[in-house]
Amino acid sequence: MTAPAFDISSLHAFYRNGGRAEDVIQAVFDRLADVNDPGIFISTADKSDLLAKAAGLGAFDVSAKPLWGIPFAVKDNIDVVGMPTTAACPDYAYTPDKDATVVARLKEAGAIVIGKTNLDQFATGLVGVRSPYPIPRNAIDPKLVPGGSSSGSAVATAQGIVSFALGTDTAGSGRVPAGLNNIVGLKPSLGALSTTGVIPACRTLDCVSVFALTVDDAWLVFSAAAGPDETDAYSRDFGRPELAALPPALKVGVPARADLRFFGDQAMAEAYDHTLDELASMGHAIKELPFADFYKVADLLYEGAWVAERYAAVKEFFDTKEASFHPLTRKIYGSAKMLSATDAFRGLYTLQAYRKQLAPILASVDLLCVPTAPRHFTVAELEAEPIRENSRLGSYTNFVNLLDMCGIAVPCGMRRDGLPSSVTLLACAGKDGLTAALARKLQQKNAIPLGATNWRLPKPAPLSIATQEQLIDLVVVGAHLSGMGLNHQLTSRNARFLRNGKTSSAYRLYDLQGQLPSKPGLIRTGNMRGGEIDVEIWQLSPAAFGSFVAEIPAPLGIGTIELSDGSSAKGFLVEAAAIETSLDITSFGGWRHYLNSQSAVAREPLET
Amino acid sequence: MTAPAFDISSLHAFYRNGGRAEDVIQAVFDRLADVNDPGIFISTADKSDLLAKAAGLGAFDVSAKPLWGIPFAVKDNIDVVGMPTTAACPDYAYTPDKDATVVARLKEAGAIVIGKTNLDQFATGLVGVRSPYPIPRNAIDPKLVPGGSSSGSAVATAQGIVSFALGTDTAGSGRVPAGLNNIVGLKPSLGALSTTGVIPACRTLDCVSVFALTVDDAWLVFSAAAGPDETDAYSRDFGRPELAALPPALKVGVPARADLRFFGDQAMAEAYDHTLDELASMGHAIKELPFADFYKVADLLYEGAWVAERYAAVKEFFDTKEASFHPLTRKIYGSAKMLSATDAFRGLYTLQAYRKQLAPILASVDLLCVPTAPRHFTVAELEAEPIRENSRLGSYTNFVNLLDMCGIAVPCGMRRDGLPSSVTLLACAGKDGLTAALARKLQQKNAIPLGATNWRLPKPAPLSIATQEQLIDLVVVGAHLSGMGLNHQLTSRNARFLRNGKTSSAYRLYDLQGQLPSKPGLIRTGNMRGGEIDVEIWQLSPAAFGSFVAEIPAPLGIGTIELSDGSSAKGFLVEAAAIETSLDITSFGGWRHYLNSQSAVAREPLET
Repeated sequence: MTAPAFDISSLHAFYRNGGRAEDVIQAVFDRLADVNDPGIFISTADKSDLLAKAAGLGAFDVSAKPLWGIPFAVKDNIDVVGMPTTAACPDYAYTPDKDATVVARLKEAGAIVIGKTNLDQFATGLVGVRSPYPIPRNAIDPKLVPGGSSSGSAVATAQGIVSFALGTDTAGSGRVPAGLNNIVGLKPSLGALSTTGVIPACRTLDCVSVFALTVDDAWLVFSAAAGPDETDAYSRDFGRPELAALPPALKVGVPARADLRFFGDQAMAEAYDHTLDELASMGHAIKELPFADFYKVADLLYEGAWVAERYAAVKEFFDTKEASFHPLTRKIYGSAKMLSATDAFRGLYTLQAYRKQLAPILASVDLLCVPTAPRHFTVAELEAEPIRENSRLGSYTNFVNLLDMCGIAVPCGMRRDGLPSSVTLLACAGKDGLTAALARKLQQKNAIPLGATNWRLPKPAPLSIATQEQLIDLVVVGAHLSGMGLNHQLTSRNARFLRNGKTSSAYRLYDLQGQLPSKPGLIRTGNMRGGEIDVEIWQLSPAAFGSFVAEIPAPLGIGTIELSDGSSAKGFLVEAAAIETSLDITSFGGWRHYLNSQSAVAREPLET
Repeated sequence: MTAPAFDISSLHAFYRNGGRAEDVIQAVFDRLADVNDPGIFISTADKSDLLAKAAGLGAFDVSAKPLWGIPFAVKDNIDVVGMPTTAACPDYAYTPDKDATVVARLKEAGAIVIGKTNLDQFATGLVGVRSPYPIPRNAIDPKLVPGGSSSGSAVATAQGIVSFALGTDTAGSGRVPAGLNNIVGLKPSLGALSTTGVIPACRTLDCVSVFALTVDDAWLVFSAAAGPDETDAYSRDFGRPELAALPPALKVGVPARADLRFFGDQAMAEAYDHTLDELASMGHAIKELPFADFYKVADLLYEGAWVAERYAAVKEFFDTKEASFHPLTRKIYGSAKMLSATDAFRGLYTLQAYRKQLAPILASVDLLCVPTAPRHFTVAELEAEPIRENSRLGSYTNFVNLLDMCGIAVPCGMRRDGLPSSVTLLACAGKDGLTAALARKLQQKNAIPLGATNWRLPKPAPLSIATQEQLIDLVVVGAHLSGMGLNHQLTSRNARFLRNGKTSSAYRLYDLQGQLPSKPGLIRTGNMRGGEIDVEIWQLSPAAFGSFVAEIPAPLGIGTIELSDGSSAKGFLVEAAAIETSLDITSFGGWRHYLNSQSAVAREPLET
C-alpha cells in the first residue's frame, strides 16, 4: 500500500479504506529519513512506542476521535508528557509529567505526537535561525530562512512529515513560518486555545497556533483543541468554534498603497496584488486603510514593556544562567532587566491609546488582508543583519496580538520566481471562523500542491451543521424581498440572503387591502388547492429575528412555511380574517410578478 | 419663597412651579454659610458668576436639559475650566482650560458647578484626613472621619449644599464616604464615564463616581454623563444606561458569615443583617460565598503593581518635588519607586489568576451585597493607626475595580446608635442598571431623611420607557401558561411573567386535533363574533424571543393579539387551515378552564 497524502481528509480516506495507523507511523519515519533535515526535531518519540500507540487506537471512528491516527509535531516550548521541553535552550530543559492542555485534547481526539520541534530560543524571533540546534531548512528553498519562531513545526508540516503541528505565536511565530513554507498558519484569538503547559514569551499576548497543509485541517485541529481551560488564567470562552458560511460581499481592509512594505521584493508585491484582485473578483470590497499606526503598534512589541514581559517569564533562570542563552536572545532579554514598573505601565497606556484610535478603523471593515511576510530572506542576509531583518519580517504580524486580533496565513500560489506567496487574514478577537472561511476560499482558488510536497489540495470539507443551526432561516414573500420597501429591516439586522425558493403548492397569496406600503398575505390552504409562490430565504441571528418578529404588524405574523423542496422554515403568514376582502393573486406565482404586471398596466397609458 | 429640598425631583418641582435658578444658587450659599465647614471646598465659583449663569439658563426644560439648574460639586482631581485643579497638593495645582468630559456633559445637561472639593491627596486613601487643607467634617457626626478619598464631595452632598457631586473611585473613594455620610455613591463600571480631564490614581482602575441624595438622582446624573469618549483610551461603550425593572427573585451573594469583617462594630453587623433580612423579604435569595479570595484581591491594590501605577501617574512631579506630598502619601508613593517591570507584570498575572478563579463564583449570583464600610472610625482612631484603619475601611471596596465590577452604595437606615448604615450592591461590569434598580428599592424600604438634612425621600421616578421597549411582550394561551407542559421554554430563556390578561372578544379558541402535548389554537375572527380568552403576558429579550419563535411548530405561529384592555402584543395564533376539524372551545374562556373541565370529566368515574 503506498503511503497516502498527509492532509487529514486523505488520511481519513486511507483509514476508511482499511489503511492502518501503523502504516502511517511507518510513513512518517520514511518521510523523516527522506527529508533528512536534522534541524526540524529536537526530539522524536520512540518509533516502537508510536507503533504500539497506533495499534492501540481501536476502531477507526472520527465521530468519537476526529483526529484518529493523525500524526503531529509539537513546538518544543509546549509540554508533552515524558518528552523534554527545551525551548531550544538545553540548560533550561525539563521533562514534564503532564501534557499541555492543547496536547492532551489533541491526543484525546486521536492524534499522535511524533516529536518536539526546533524554534527560535524561547520563541523570541521570527527567523528560525536563533537556536543552538541545527537550523531547520526552509522546505521550499534551503537558501532561505525557514521563518520562526516555530521553524521546526512549520517545516515538519510543509515537508509532509506530519499532518499538522503546534506552534506558538506572540509576534508572528505562527504565521511567518507558514508563509515562508507554503502552508497554513492559524493563529487563534488570544485565549481560545489554552496556554497551560506552554513556556511563556509574553503571557498577556501568547497563544498556541496550528500549522497545517489546508485551512480545513487547521480548522479541524483548532476545533478539537479549543475551549475554556480553568487552569489558564488568560483562557477565554468564545463558544464552540464555527466555520461560518462566507458572506457574499466582505469589506476587506488592506494597507494603503503608500504604506505597503516589501523591502525590495517585487515578486511579493505582485503576488499580493494578485491576491487582492482575486478577493475583488470574489465580490469582496477592498478598502485601503492608513497603516502607519499599525506599524507603530508593531514596534511596541520590542520596545520596553513587552520585552520586560519576556524577561519576567524566565527572570530567575536568566539572572543565574545568562550564559546559557543564545547571544541575540541574551541581548534582547538583558535589555529588559532594568525596566521599571513605570515603564511597564506606560507601555500598557500607550498600547491602550492605539487600541482606542484603531478601533473605528478596524470596525470599518470585516477583516484585514495583509502579506504574511513582506519578503523572503536568505540565511546569509539574516546573518548579515540579524536584528533588522527579523524586525522587518514582523511588519504585518507584530501588531496583531497587541490589538487582540485573530489571524490565519494562507498559501496564495507561487510567485513568478517559484517561491511561495501568502497572505494573512486578520480580524478582531472571536472572528476566527470568518477569517478561516475566507482563507479556505483563497486556498481553493490557488489550489497548488501542499507545502513542499506534490500532494494536491483535497475537496473542501462540508461546513459543520452546527453553524447553520445557530441561525434562523426566514421565508419572506412580499415587501421584505430583495430590493423591496422593507428589505432594509433585514439588511439592517445583518440578515444574510440564502437563496430563492418556492412554497409548496399548499399556499394562496393575496394583495392585502389597505396596506401601506402594499403587502401580500400568504395563507396555507387545508389541502393542495394553492400554488407554488416565489419566496426568498434569509438567515438571521436569534436576536435579530426576535426584534424583527416583534415589529411585524397585524394581520401578518410568523408561522411555518412548507417549501417546494420538502423543507420548511419560519416565514410570513397572514391571519385568515384579513383576506376576506383581499384580491387572490396566487396565479401570478409571487409578489414580484404581481407588482411587475401592475406597473406594466400602470405604464401602458404613457407608452401608447 | 423657602428653599426647596435639593434632591433633583424636588428642585425640578420647584422650577416647574416658577422657582428661579438664582434662588437655588442663593440657597446654596446660604447652606454653605450655615454648615460652615471650611474643609469641604478647596475652591468655590464666584457667586455673582453663578447667579449670571443661572439667569442665563433659558426656559426650564428637562427634556433638553435633564439637569437644568441643578447645583453640583466636583472633586478637586477633576478639571473644571478656569478653576484650579489641586488634587489636594497645592504645589501640583494648575488651571485647566478645558472641562473634564464628564463635567462638560453635565454642564451641557444644565447642571451648575458650585466648587471643587477636598480629597485625600491624589485620591490615595479612604479616610478623608490626608489633605493639607482643613479636614471636612463627617456630616452625621463630626467626631467621625468623613471617609475618602472623595471626602468633600460626599460631605457637600450629605449637607445638602449641592444636589450631587462627582468623585473618583479606584479603591472605594466613591463608596466609603457615601456610606459614612448617609448618601448614595454610584461607582459605574470602569470606562462607563470618561476619565479624560481627571488626574489618574491607577489609570487601569480609575473611574469617576457620583454622590447623590437618592438612587434616582445618582442614576439621572450617571445617565447624563455616561457614554463613550474617544479621548479616553479606557472608555468603553456599554450602550445607553438603562435602569432595569427589577427581576422578582435575584440571587444575592454575600460574604460567608465567618468571612464577615466588622472590626468590633456590632451595630454595623446588626444593620447589615437587617438589610439582608429585607432583601430576603423582598423575595431575593441570599447566598453565602467564600470571601477569602476577594480580600486577597483587595490586598493587591496596595502591594506592588498598582502602587507603582499611582507613582507612574505623577513620577516626574514626585521625583522632583517629593516634599510637596502629604507625609503618608509620600511614603506610599515612594515605596513604588524601585518596583521593576517584572513586579508590575507579575502583579497583573496574579490578578488575572484571581479573576479566573472568582469568575464562576461571581457567575453563580446576580449581584453581591456587602457592607459599604466595615465600621465607623473616629478621627482620633485614624490618627492613632492611619495605615491600618485606612486599609480596614477598604475591606469591601478594594477588590471591586480590580475585578471589573460596578457598584452602588445605598443608605439602609440608621443603626441603633444613630449612625448611618449602608450596603454596597456590586455586580460584573455592565450591570450598573441592575445594581441601581435594587438599590432604589432598598432606599425606598428605608425611607429616612436624606444625607444629614431633614429632607424626605421623594417618590421614586418612573422607570424610563426605553427599558421596556427593549424587551418583547408575548401573549401565551396554552401549553406555555405557567405550570403547563411547555412553560419551561419560557423560563429557561429567562422570560419574565408580567401579568394575566384577556384577549379582545375577536378571538375563538380551538382544541387542536392530533397535538401532543395537547394544545389550543387561537384565531382572530373577522369581527367580534368571538370571546375574551384568558392569556398570560410574558416578556423576553429579543434573542430569547427569536429562538423561541424559531421553535414553534406548524400550525402555530406568532402574530399580533388584541387584548381586552385595548393594547396588543405578539402572541400565539393558529393557521386557519388547521382548525377545520378541531373542537371550538371558546365558551370555556381559556385553555386552563377547558383542561380543568376535561380532568373533572375524566375524574368523575373514579369519584362516583
